[in-house]
Amino acid sequence: MKRQIAEILLVGTELLLGDIMDTNGKYLARELSDLGIDLYYQTVVGDNPKRLREAVNRALERSDVVISSGGLGPTCDDITRETFADALGLELKLHEPTVERLKSFFTSVGRKMTDNNMRQAMVPEGATVLTNDWGTAPGLYMKKDQKHAFLLPGPPRELEPMFRERVRPILFDMSDRKFVSDTLEVYGIGESALEEKLRDLMQGADPSLAPYAKDGEVLLRITSSGADVAEAKEKNRGMIQKVLERAGEYVYDINGESLQRALVERFSKKGLKIATAESLTGGLISKRITSVSGASAVFELGICSYSDRIKNKILSVSEASLEEYSAVSEAVAMEMAEGARRLSGADIAVSATGYAGPTGERVGLVYIGVSSSLSTRAVKLDTGRRTGEREYIRSLSASRAIAEALREAGLFSWENSCCK
Amino acid sequence: MKRQIAEILLVGTELLLGDIMDTNGKYLARELSDLGIDLYYQTVVGDNPKRLREAVNRALERSDVVISSGGLGPTCDDITRETFADALGLELKLHEPTVERLKSFFTSVGRKMTDNNMRQAMVPEGATVLTNDWGTAPGLYMKKDQKHAFLLPGPPRELEPMFRERVRPILFDMSDRKFVSDTLEVYGIGESALEEKLRDLMQGADPSLAPYAKDGEVLLRITSSGADVAEAKEKNRGMIQKVLERAGEYVYDINGESLQRALVERFSKKGLKIATAESLTGGLISKRITSVSGASAVFELGICSYSDRIKNKILSVSEASLEEYSAVSEAVAMEMAEGARRLSGADIAVSATGYAGPTGERVGLVYIGVSSSLSTRAVKLDTGRRTGEREYIRSLSASRAIAEALREAGLFSWENSCCK
Repeated sequence: MKRQIAEILLVGTELLLGDIMDTNGKYLARELSDLGIDLYYQTVVGDNPKRLREAVNRALERSDVVISSGGLGPTCDDITRETFADALGLELKLHEPTVERLKSFFTSVGRKMTDNNMRQAMVPEGATVLTNDWGTAPGLYMKKDQKHAFLLPGPPRELEPMFRERVRPILFDMSDRKFVSDTLEVYGIGESALEEKLRDLMQGADPSLAPYAKDGEVLLRITSSGADVAEAKEKNRGMIQKVLERAGEYVYDINGESLQRALVERFSKKGLKIATAESLTGGLISKRITSVSGASAVFELGICSYSDRIKNKILSVSEASLEEYSAVSEAVAMEMAEGARRLSGADIAVSATGYAGPTGERVGLVYIGVSSSLSTRAVKLDTGRRTGEREYIRSLSASRAIAEALREAGLFSWENSCCK
Repeated sequence: MKRQIAEILLVGTELLLGDIMDTNGKYLARELSDLGIDLYYQTVVGDNPKRLREAVNRALERSDVVISSGGLGPTCDDITRETFADALGLELKLHEPTVERLKSFFTSVGRKMTDNNMRQAMVPEGATVLTNDWGTAPGLYMKKDQKHAFLLPGPPRELEPMFRERVRPILFDMSDRKFVSDTLEVYGIGESALEEKLRDLMQGADPSLAPYAKDGEVLLRITSSGADVAEAKEKNRGMIQKVLERAGEYVYDINGESLQRALVERFSKKGLKIATAESLTGGLISKRITSVSGASAVFELGICSYSDRIKNKILSVSEASLEEYSAVSEAVAMEMAEGARRLSGADIAVSATGYAGPTGERVGLVYIGVSSSLSTRAVKLDTGRRTGEREYIRSLSASRAIAEALREAGLFSWENSCCK
């Protein structure tokens, strides 16, 4: 079966001026990959009629599926709609249901609708309007001569749900074969060591197995195709089983998201509470945990103790340890974690102390402390990074602290995954 | 004078699979804009010889300056070097100085050099090698028939310094006119209200004035050109003066970076210390402050008190206030800030309490508390965001808390800027 070839057009002069970071390209690329559609090109083009027209023509010529983002707004710079309609030879007509939708939207937010907004209700003949429940600019789906064009609004918080709810089902139905993806979240082994273990499995194309490294974590993505979803799912299950047999001890979640989400979900389910005591991470561990909605069920207290004085005064780290071993030591990491646990009454407390740099001889040396009713221990984490990577060192340290909290609670394993 | 037209080619199949987020495109776009070079296209293309060749040919045909990122590594997937050389009709030759460089690099890191690495020492005839002091793959500059091609490595921590140190000077010299950019960092006024005040100034092209909004802050970018740098700088100075006259009260820095950097620099200079007490922000305020190197001079203690119990126990927020007004109230915000100041002995403490969502009727309601030896006050911040924007609400709240700390210290104004 011939796989479909896709192309992404990101429209907007602001992208060519470097004003904003595009995230739509990556989002759409990943989604297309999950659908088994090959993305060959991704082009950023400004709000310039001639250059946009050229880019649209080229895309429609060489690709089966073209997805654009941006240029659907009400201003005269917004020309994506007109350009695609013109390239496909479709006439624009006022779309009454969209007029009504826009009118009631403007009434509901108490703003006045301008004539310009009316341009957003112009729809090429035969096109399908993709209703935008997340903003004002409707999306469009135009089809002609086996070419499929999807026009989506630029803001990611509109584009992402629009793709998921409106475009994905159409692309999914379009294909004879159905693709299904699953992810395994891995922590505690480097990408190359993991590849070593899984090399032969990574050779296959269906199911495919691909690793993505990020800040000391690895995500394994498994994609299979089948005549129907059930068949694809079954193939994924087989691959997941093989990976778990070889590297299961490092897999902390299946179709999960992050260490912090696993922690909040699992601690919450067991009625456990966590506290933090942070030095070099400066609040990053608590920030990550509390970024998960529902965190209040497991998290009550985090102390960010940046000076020796505060470590002693608030967390009761002994002056003796601070003097004898310095603030970056196993002893102090353990006393910080103990202090946080005592203060908060939490079941488990974790701490992080170390040198984040940017300068100094011992940059990258970090101790993570873990304290529970069973024991208190410290883990040495040599991030091995050179100077100037302050945020990277902080990030690795926060990941390790959260992973250690999961381990201490006996909840690290993927067997605790809610989505397996 | 004809402005030069540039094009960016981002090379890598991993970008088309959505595995990694490209940041090079935005970085290069901004840098080119600052140099007065017009960027018309930015294309992502995979490691496929035919498609890369087409993209390179098209770029060299329609643009004066072509900058590529990626595909310079040692593996057989890395074909950018060969493709450009071929397109420009230049033969590849072994470059002895680069061989020596690579050899000594591999010796220094204790790794074995492979035959593949030798490919990185192949240089098109007449090309200039752009020495890479940040990694192994050297960059290349090829020039032919008024076309300029710059090949840079893909990793941002190599590409960014390579552009800054190696490419920028060449592009700068290439142009008759010299471009200079300055930024004004703005907080406390929305983008559209600011545009209202500055509309006529934004019409001009040289100096140009452009606003960029980000998480409740606005960055104003001013760019001028001149026969020499001094002339361009002088034009920028005139524009800066005009902006300050109209909206100076919102400008907190000149050529600065962020509220937290301004805080760390200015508090440090005055010998002031800050403490934080966070509820909805969950450590984000302290995380931001401690992300600035040198933060230890101004920051000692942050408390992340997520529950009422901890607000009362650690920060001594009164049970009466918690019961009468609830944890999200002016009274509690003020008591949290007071508590943090008392515990830490800091000069100024800030707090944040509110509803980050994702659900609930009062999502987006936030109180920021500020306490100093002079007074304690609370600020109501109605972020006006709908549900589901938890991180956005947290981010706005953290910005406001840091801005209020600067205001309380009388250090908010741009007049405290170290770079003006």
